[in-house]
Amino acid sequence: MGAETKLQDSIATTMDAMGIAARRAAASLARSTGATRDHALKAAARQLRAHADEILAANGEDMQDARRRGLSAAMLDRLLLDAARIEAMAAGVEAVAALGDPLGRVLAEWTRPNGLVIQRVTVPLGVIGIIYESRPNVTADAAALCLKAGNASILRGGSESFHSSTAIHHCLLAGLEEAGIDPAAVQMVPTTDRAAVGYLLSSMAQWVDVVVPRGGKSLIKRVQDEARVPVIGHLEGICHVYLHAAAGTDMARDVALNAKMRRTGICGAAETILVDRDAAERLIPAVAQALAEAGCEVRGDDTVMGLVAAAVPASEADWSTEYLDAIVSIRVVDGIDEAVRHIERYGSGHTESIVTDDAAAADRFLRDVDSAIVLHNASTQFADGGEFGMGAEIGIATGRIHARGPVGAEQLTSYKYVVRGSGQVRP
Amino acid sequence: MGAETKLQDSIATTMDAMGIAARRAAASLARSTGATRDHALKAAARQLRAHADEILAANGEDMQDARRRGLSAAMLDRLLLDAARIEAMAAGVEAVAALGDPLGRVLAEWTRPNGLVIQRVTVPLGVIGIIYESRPNVTADAAALCLKAGNASILRGGSESFHSSTAIHHCLLAGLEEAGIDPAAVQMVPTTDRAAVGYLLSSMAQWVDVVVPRGGKSLIKRVQDEARVPVIGHLEGICHVYLHAAAGTDMARDVALNAKMRRTGICGAAETILVDRDAAERLIPAVAQALAEAGCEVRGDDTVMGLVAAAVPASEADWSTEYLDAIVSIRVVDGIDEAVRHIERYGSGHTESIVTDDAAAADRFLRDVDSAIVLHNASTQFADGGEFGMGAEIGIATGRIHARGPVGAEQLTSYKYVVRGSGQVRP
Repeated sequence: MGAETKLQDSIATTMDAMGIAARRAAASLARSTGATRDHALKAAARQLRAHADEILAANGEDMQDARRRGLSAAMLDRLLLDAARIEAMAAGVEAVAALGDPLGRVLAEWTRPNGLVIQRVTVPLGVIGIIYESRPNVTADAAALCLKAGNASILRGGSESFHSSTAIHHCLLAGLEEAGIDPAAVQMVPTTDRAAVGYLLSSMAQWVDVVVPRGGKSLIKRVQDEARVPVIGHLEGICHVYLHAAAGTDMARDVALNAKMRRTGICGAAETILVDRDAAERLIPAVAQALAEAGCEVRGDDTVMGLVAAAVPASEADWSTEYLDAIVSIRVVDGIDEAVRHIERYGSGHTESIVTDDAAAADRFLRDVDSAIVLHNASTQFADGGEFGMGAEIGIATGRIHARGPVGAEQLTSYKYVVRGSGQVRP
Repeated sequence: MGAETKLQDSIATTMDAMGIAARRAAASLARSTGATRDHALKAAARQLRAHADEILAANGEDMQDARRRGLSAAMLDRLLLDAARIEAMAAGVEAVAALGDPLGRVLAEWTRPNGLVIQRVTVPLGVIGIIYESRPNVTADAAALCLKAGNASILRGGSESFHSSTAIHHCLLAGLEEAGIDPAAVQMVPTTDRAAVGYLLSSMAQWVDVVVPRGGKSLIKRVQDEARVPVIGHLEGICHVYLHAAAGTDMARDVALNAKMRRTGICGAAETILVDRDAAERLIPAVAQALAEAGCEVRGDDTVMGLVAAAVPASEADWSTEYLDAIVSIRVVDGIDEAVRHIERYGSGHTESIVTDDAAAADRFLRDVDSAIVLHNASTQFADGGEFGMGAEIGIATGRIHARGPVGAEQLTSYKYVVRGSGQVRP
C-alpha cells in the first residue's frame, strides 16, 4: 500500500468518525432546550474573551506562516486578529445567543375533518459542514449559528488560519462543556489536507445533511462541482442598480454610489448600473461624477462613452464580472423589459435594485426580476442578515432550494409534522 | 467517432435544448397569473377526457409490449389505464386547479427602523425534473403540480409507459396552448434511452433546479447516487407503530392493523410494531391475531415467539426491511427511549406513530422521534398529502432540506425578498 493510499484511508477513518459523532451529537441537540444551547453560546463568548491572548498567539503563528508564504495584503488582513476583532467575535456569539429560539416553532396548525390536529414544527437541519477560507472568525460565527438552531457542525477552515481556528475552537468546546453539551456538537477537521474537503463533499452524505461554503469563487465552484450532499451557498454577487426614467437625480446618484462604493468587496456591492435611455443624459453624468470622485473607474457602453469623458469602453466580459473592487460598468437600456433581460442574462440571482418614483414600474421590476433580493429605492448593500433584522447570517443563498437570501439561524432549520389523534384509522 | 459517442452527443444536444427551453418557459411562468395556469390545468383535464380513446390505444401498445417482455402482474397493473383511471387523472388535474395560488404569498413582512419594508414572497422553484417509473398517471399528476406552482417540468417516465405518457403529454400541451402558455412549460424526454436520465441528473444543473424521483428503491438510489442537482424524494418508508404501556388494547389493535394492512404497498404502511414489555402479554396476542386474520405474516423476537404460535423468528435484517407486503415484524422494547433508539437505528425518517393514553409519553415520542411525520393515536397510513388536507402531492420527502413530509404545490415553491424603500443607503 502506497503512502498516499494510507493517507487517504486515514482521512476517511478520521472523517467517518467525525460524521458518526456529529450525528450522535445532533440527535442529542435536537432534544436540548434553547436555554442549554444559549448557555453554551454565552459561555463560549466568555471563553473567547478569557483566552484572547492564546488566540492572538495562535494567530501570530498563522500570520508568520502567511507572510513567509507571501500571501497578499488583502489575504493577510482577512487572516489578522486583534483585540477588537476577538471582542467583535465574542459579541457576535452573544448576539446569536440573544436571538429567539428557532426550534419548536409551530409554523402552521390545522385540524382535519376526522379530528386529526396537524402541526408543522421547526426542528434542526441536523449536521452542517462549513467549508471556509482564511477568516478565522467564521469558526465562531458559523458554529454559533449552527448550535443556536440545534445543529451539529463540522468546520473546515483554510489551512492558513489553522492555528487561529483551533484556538477559537477550544473556546467553543469549553462553552459546550459548561452547558453539558456533547463536544461533538462542534467539531473541527484536524488536518489541513485538501483531501479532507473532497471526502466531506463526496463521501459523507450519510452523516452530513448540508454543506455551507463560505469564501471566494474558486471555493464555491469546487464545492458545487464535487458535492454529493446538498449545498446552501452563493456563487457570485453580480448585483445591479437600475435607474429608471422616473428616478430622481439625487436619489439615483446616492443609491448608485452607495451600492457600488460603500464597501466594494462584499457580495451585495453593485457591479453594473443600468440606466433608461430616456434619462441617460440627465442621470449618467451625475452618477458617473459621484462615482469618479469616490475613486471608482467607470466602464461604459457607447452612450456612456459619449457622456462621461473619463469612461473606458466596457467589453462583453464586463457585464458578467464581479469586480469586488472600485470599478463599475454602466449600460443604457430601453426600459424595464430590457433591464430585466440584462439581469436575467448576466446577473447571479443575488440582489438587484430599481430606483424610480413610478410605483407601477417598481412593482413590475420587483415581480419580474428573479433574484434572492429585489429592492426599490434602496442600496443593494442592504443585502445582509443584520440589515434585514434577522441577526447573524452564515451567507446569502442564491440557490432556489431550502433557503434564499440571508441564511440565519431560522434558515438552518427543517420541520416535521406532528399529528395528534384519538385512534383515527384510515378508511 | 463511434456509434455510442454519437448517440451520447445526440442525447446531450436534445437534453440541453430541453433545458434551455424549460428555463425560458420558467421565466415566463414566473410572471403568469394563477388564473392563466389554472386555465391551462382545466383545459388539460378536458383534453384528457376528450382524448381518452387515444390514451387507451397508446396504453394498449404499452401493455402489449409489457406482456411480451413478461412484466409482473403488479407492474402490469401499475401500467394499466382504463376509463376510470383516466377520469381519475382528469379529476386530479382539476383538483390541483382548484387549489389556492401558491405564488405571490407574503410569508412574512416587517419594517426596519430605517423605514425599509421587507417582504418574503413565494416564487416558483424554477425547472423541476421528474423521473418516474411505470405509472403513466404520474405524467399528468406531476406536471399539474409543477405548473400550479409556476414551475416548468421535464418529465422522464419509464420506458414501459412511453406511449401512454406521450398521449397524456399531448393533452397537457393542448391545455397549455389554450391558455397561451409556452409549450416548453411541460416537456417530456423524447427517448427511452437510459443515458438521458444520467444526463438529466449529472449535467443539467444549469437548467434544472431540482429533481423529484418517483418510484422504487432502485430508482431513488440511482437518483441519489448520480444527481449533481438537488433532489427532493424519499428512499424508503420503514414506518413504525409503537404501542406504549399505556395504550388501550382496542386502539392499539385497530391502529396497528390499519397501519400495516389497509394498503401494504404504500410508503406510509407500517413495517415494524414496537411493544412495551410491560404491556406485551396484553397487547401482542390481540394485535397478532387481528393481523393474522387479515392475512399478515408475523415475524417476531423471542418474546413475540412465546406469545404468538404462528409467528416466525425475525432476523436482524427484518428490522430494516420495507416489506411493502403483508408481513410485519414485532419487537418488544423497554420503554420510550428504547423505542426511539430502535427507530433511529432502523427507521427511514418517514412516519412513526405512538399509541398511548399517556399524554406526557406521547409528547416525549413526538419530540424525540426525528421523522418527517410523527403521530399520536393515529395510523401511519395518514402519511399522505390528501389526508393532510394539502391537496395532491408529488411524494413524501424524507430529506431534511427544503421540504419534508408531503410535497404539494406549496412545497414546490421558493421565495424571494422584496424590499421597498424611499432612497435608503447603508451608512
